[in-house]
Amino acid sequence: MNDARWLLLSGGVGGAKLALGLAHCLPAGQLTVLANTGDDFEHLGLVISPDLDTLMYTLAGVVNTQTGWGRAGETWSFMEALGQLGGETWFRLGDHDLATHVERTRRLAAGEPLSAVTAALCARLGVGSTLLPMSDDPVRTLVHTDAGVLAFQDYFVRRAAGPRVQRLEYRGAAAARPAAALAEVLADPALAGILIAPSNPWLSIAPILAVPGLAAALRVCPAPVVAISPLIGGRAVKGPTARIMADLGLPVGAAGIAAHYHELLDGFILDRADAAVAAAIAATGLKVQLADSLMTTLEDRIGLARSAMDFAAALRRD
Amino acid sequence: MNDARWLLLSGGVGGAKLALGLAHCLPAGQLTVLANTGDDFEHLGLVISPDLDTLMYTLAGVVNTQTGWGRAGETWSFMEALGQLGGETWFRLGDHDLATHVERTRRLAAGEPLSAVTAALCARLGVGSTLLPMSDDPVRTLVHTDAGVLAFQDYFVRRAAGPRVQRLEYRGAAAARPAAALAEVLADPALAGILIAPSNPWLSIAPILAVPGLAAALRVCPAPVVAISPLIGGRAVKGPTARIMADLGLPVGAAGIAAHYHELLDGFILDRADAAVAAAIAATGLKVQLADSLMTTLEDRIGLARSAMDFAAALRRD
Repeated sequence: MNDARWLLLSGGVGGAKLALGLAHCLPAGQLTVLANTGDDFEHLGLVISPDLDTLMYTLAGVVNTQTGWGRAGETWSFMEALGQLGGETWFRLGDHDLATHVERTRRLAAGEPLSAVTAALCARLGVGSTLLPMSDDPVRTLVHTDAGVLAFQDYFVRRAAGPRVQRLEYRGAAAARPAAALAEVLADPALAGILIAPSNPWLSIAPILAVPGLAAALRVCPAPVVAISPLIGGRAVKGPTARIMADLGLPVGAAGIAAHYHELLDGFILDRADAAVAAAIAATGLKVQLADSLMTTLEDRIGLARSAMDFAAALRRD
Repeated sequence: MNDARWLLLSGGVGGAKLALGLAHCLPAGQLTVLANTGDDFEHLGLVISPDLDTLMYTLAGVVNTQTGWGRAGETWSFMEALGQLGGETWFRLGDHDLATHVERTRRLAAGEPLSAVTAALCARLGVGSTLLPMSDDPVRTLVHTDAGVLAFQDYFVRRAAGPRVQRLEYRGAAAARPAAALAEVLADPALAGILIAPSNPWLSIAPILAVPGLAAALRVCPAPVVAISPLIGGRAVKGPTARIMADLGLPVGAAGIAAHYHELLDGFILDRADAAVAAAIAATGLKVQLADSLMTTLEDRIGLARSAMDFAAALRRD
C-alpha cells in the first residue's frame, strides 16, 4: 500500500478537512483532489474559485482554521476601502486572498487553463497533493428557488441559503470536458480507492458528476468508490444539506444520501449517530461502515481519513 | 473674487500639493483639476491611474503624506501574498488603494467613461473639487530611451527613471478628445485663471497639452495662464525633470522651462532660488513672479497657491 494512490471528490470546507486528513496519511503526490468548480463566479472583475481556494489553503496550511475558508492572519483593508467607494462588499475578500484571485484572473486572461493556474498556485504555496478542477470548462451552479433563479454565491452567501430550493442546474456542464489529468489518475493501477467527501451532495458533488463521462469513468474504474455521509444524526454539520433535501422532497437522512449516490458506490460511511439506518442502507446492497465523522481536530480528520481508506481497501474488487 | 473659479493642469505628487493649497483657499466647487492620464496603465488586469489617484487621495485628505502617493495607514497584505504566489510586485499596490483600481476597472468594463468613474470615486471620498481626466480616451506616455521604448511605469517605477531619454511619445493622443467638461470650465466668465502645476513638463503636463485642441482652447480662453516652475535652484524637488532636460539636450533651468511653455503663458512663477534668471525670462515677454515654491508644509502649499492666484489675477487681460 506504500504507493497507493487515492482520489477524493470534494467541495469546500468539509471536504477540505478530509483532504487534509488524507494528505497527512499519505506520502506527497499520492492524493489527487477533484474539486467542484460549480461555485466559481466572476465578481468585481475577478474569477473566484471558492472550493479550489479552500482546498488549496487547507492543504498548504494557510487556511483560517476558525472559518474553514480564507487565509489565516488575514487583513481586510481592501473590503473596508471598497465599502467606502460604494463597491459591493457582500462577498468577503481578504487582502491576502485577493492576490489569489488577481493572479488567477490574470493567468486565465493570458490563456492558461484553470488546471494549469491551479497547479502553479499550489506549487507556490507548497501543496504536496494534486488539486484538479473538475473541468477547465466553466460550469455554473444555478439554484432555482421560490425567489427566482439565483447564481450560486447569490443564493449561498448573499442570501445565506435562505430561499426555498426547487431544483439545481449545473449550467455549462453538458459542454464541459472532465479534467484532462483525471483519465491518467483513473487508469493508474496504484489507485486504491475513490472517496466522495462529506460535502453537500447537491451543491458540491453533483456539479462534478454532471460533467459528461465523469461519473461513468468512476464506475468503470476498478478502484472501489466510497462516499462519506455529510449528515450526523440526520443533520448537516454546516450548510444547507438537510434543508435542500427537504426542499427537494427527499427523505432527510443518511439513507437518502446513500440512495442518491447508490449507482456510483461500492461502500458508504455514515456517522455512528446514524447507526440506526445502517442496516436499511446495507439492505440496498451497499457495504456500510460506521465512523466518527465530525472533524473538529486534526486527529479527527486523520482518523476519518484512515477509516475511509481502510474500508475502501477492504472493498477492492480485484 | 468670491465666485472666482480656477483651473489647474497637474500631474501627480507635486501638482497635488498645489491642488491641495488651492482647495484650501477656495470654496468647494471652485477648483477644477485637469489631470494627466498619460501615466495610466493596465497592470495585473487592473486599470491604474496614478496621477488621478494621487490627486484624489490628496484632495480627500487620505493620502500618505510621507510618500505623497498611496493612502495613509495603508497595509500591504496583497503585495505580500502576490509575491508568495509568484506575481509581479514591482509596482506597489496597497490593500486600500487596490479597492480604487478594482472598482475603477469594474466600472470602465461596464462602459462608464473614466471621467464619470473619477467623479463617482471622488464623491464617495468627499472631494470638494472637480477632478477631470484630461481625456476619456486612452493616451499612453512612451519613453524612447537608450534601453528601448519603455511604457511609462516601466521607465519611471520599474527602472527608477534610469535609462537615458531620447524622446517622449504620447501614444493615442492624436485620436483623443479633451475632457468633455473642459469646454464649460473654459467658457465660464468666472474663470479667474489657469495654472500649470510645478509638475514635470515632459512627463506630466505635455501629455495633457498633446490632446488635440486642448492647448489651443487654453490659449483662446481670456483667463490668464500661469505656470509654476518645477525647479528650485535649477534642480527638481523630486523626479527626473532636470535629467530629462539634459537628456533632451535642453538648457537645464527655469529659463528652459519658461521657453518650453512660452506660447501658452501669460506669466511664469519661479523660485526665489532662481531669481538670477528672472530678468532673462522677463526679457522674452513673459510676466515673471518670484515665490517660495518648496511645498513641505500645508502652509507652504497654501502660500504658493495664494501667490499664484494673486499673480494671475493681476494679469487678467479684461
